[in-house]
This record gives sequence, structure tokens and C-alpha cells, in this order.
Amino acid sequence: MTITPWKILESQYFRPRFRTDKVELPNGRVFEPIVFEFRSWANVLALTKDQQVVLVRQYRHGVQKVLYEFPGGVIEDGEQPVEGVRRELLEETGYVAAEFIQVGQLYPNPAIQSNNLHFFVALDAEKVGGQHLDEAEDIEVHLVQLDELIAMSRRGEFLHALQVAGLYQALLYLDRIC
Amino acid sequence: MTITPWKILESQYFRPRFRTDKVELPNGRVFEPIVFEFRSWANVLALTKDQQVVLVRQYRHGVQKVLYEFPGGVIEDGEQPVEGVRRELLEETGYVAAEFIQVGQLYPNPAIQSNNLHFFVALDAEKVGGQHLDEAEDIEVHLVQLDELIAMSRRGEFLHALQVAGLYQALLYLDRIC
Repeated sequence: MTITPWKILESQYFRPRFRTDKVELPNGRVFEPIVFEFRSWANVLALTKDQQVVLVRQYRHGVQKVLYEFPGGVIEDGEQPVEGVRRELLEETGYVAAEFIQVGQLYPNPAIQSNNLHFFVALDAEKVGGQHLDEAEDIEVHLVQLDELIAMSRRGEFLHALQVAGLYQALLYLDRIC
Repeated sequence: MTITPWKILESQYFRPRFRTDKVELPNGRVFEPIVFEFRSWANVLALTKDQQVVLVRQYRHGVQKVLYEFPGGVIEDGEQPVEGVRRELLEETGYVAAEFIQVGQLYPNPAIQSNNLHFFVALDAEKVGGQHLDEAEDIEVHLVQLDELIAMSRRGEFLHALQVAGLYQALLYLDRIC
């Protein structure tokens, strides 16, 4: 058995970056899936010299809750993923890092989104200044040991699935999956 | 510093389940975020008696690629998450399992979606029949050892971020995070 991609007959935008495709399936059936053409995202597990992880905590309106996450955000047009994540780390936390290693490039929701989620580990992170937040941002910075972050995820205190995926990729890189 | 949730002044639906809120931020600024009220999702890492993982492979139109995933899907109205995931496992793979353990309840995209992602580990899974697929589904079933699944993720062959998050939650439960 081989899986055949769907054939796109027609594409229409009903809002900018929100597309409806008319597609033909291998069985001849036609239907109209939605695709969100979001910009790609990048996040970073930044480790300080004493092996603490730089976390952020912010309000997320989809679930109306305040959640722990890794620093990161949208990669702007013309930026490389590593440039975007370095910028977001500095803006959200005031931290810079000596080295950024890409440890994952995943699809955040491949059924309906076309974008990528880039994930990095940064080493020797250190604070060089304050935050530079957008008007709509209100972000707390928290330092936790990596083991404490794993314990938080065990206790149900690290609930953003895309950040959990990034944690997995970082732990793979750090040889903590056994 | 305390993070204050946004105050919803008004909500409007521009398509069913697609909402625009008019919100007031703690700094007084007003803006209009989108919220997708998707149904919740559930996936399962099902282990057979000989410790193989039941994977599916299917076409995902957002990225126009065929990807490995865990069986699962949308929880229907009136279903408990465990009922939904048991149904999806049977429909997509023909497998049943003796025991389902919930190992995670995450937010797949808490900034813009209100739904949950429920993740389960199932033990003693066995094949009792064929697939029962929707007209739009074309799904291959693959059995792999758990160590091979981890190796696949290391090689960049397990790319669906929400499934990677589920793998992490399963490995936490199975004591494979060290």
C-alpha cells in the first residue's frame, strides 16, 4: 500500500494566510481542507553556566491561562531561525547565549498548518539587560534546574504541548532519554 | 509581578468554532485575538505484548507530506477521552488494548486554540480486525520497537510536534527520562 498526496485543484484565501484548497483524493473524492500559512516558530531551552533553564511564564488567551514556556516566538520574514530565536530570547528575558544548537525541526500541526517549529538548545546563557516586550506581552522570567523542569512536567505544570515537544528534542540532544 | 488574564469585552464568530474576542489588556490596550474552538484530541502509544509500538502513517495536507504518528483523533461530543482514543485505535489500526493509562493532558496551541490534547499509553494491544477508515483517510499501520521509535525521532523521522509531546509524556510514564 502506498499513500498518495492529495491533488490541489484550486486554492482560495478567505483571510490573509488562511487558505481553502479544493483537493482531489486518490479515491476521486473532492473536498475542501483549510490551511493556515502561519510564519514558522522557534523556541530555545537556554542553559546558564550553572545549568539552570531560562523559562518564561505568560498568559495564553486560547485557554485563558498563565503557562510556563521556553522563550521564543515567530520568526520574522528574512530572519534565519537561529536569528529569530536569539532575538526572542533577548527581548523576552534579557539573556544572550554563546552557542545555539538546533535540536529539532518539527511540524506544530501538519494537518492544517504549513509552518515549522524550530527548536534550539543554547549554552552558557547569561543576562545582559532587561526585557524589551511588545505592548501585548507581559512575561515573567523564571530560572529552574533541568531536573526541576522534568519534575514540573511530571506534576502537570508544563502544559504547552509544543514546548513539551521541544523539551523532548532537547533531552534527546542532552542524552537524557534512556 | 503578577500576570493578569485579559478581560473579554465581546466575542464574535466569523465561522463556526472560529471566534474573534475583543479584549482589554492590563495596560488598558484593546485588541482582537482569534480563538479556534476545536474539539479536543486524543492519541495513544499502544504497546503490544512483545513491546512493539503501533504507529500510523498518513498524509497531512498542511505540510503536504506523509508522516508517522500515534493512532488517535478528535474526541466526539459525548465521548470521554479514553473512549475516543479506544475508538480511534480500533478504527485506524484494528487494534484493541487491555488497559489505557492517561499520561498527559496538554494544550496543543494555547495561544489560539481552546482545546486539549489527551495522551494515553495502552498495554497488551492486539489486533482483532481490519481498519474502518473515513472516506478521506488512507492510513498505513507500522509496528516498531520503542527504541526504534526513539531512534526515528533522533534521525528526524518523527516530525509531528504534538506526537513528539505525547512520546515525551509516555516516556516519562515508562521511566525512560533520566
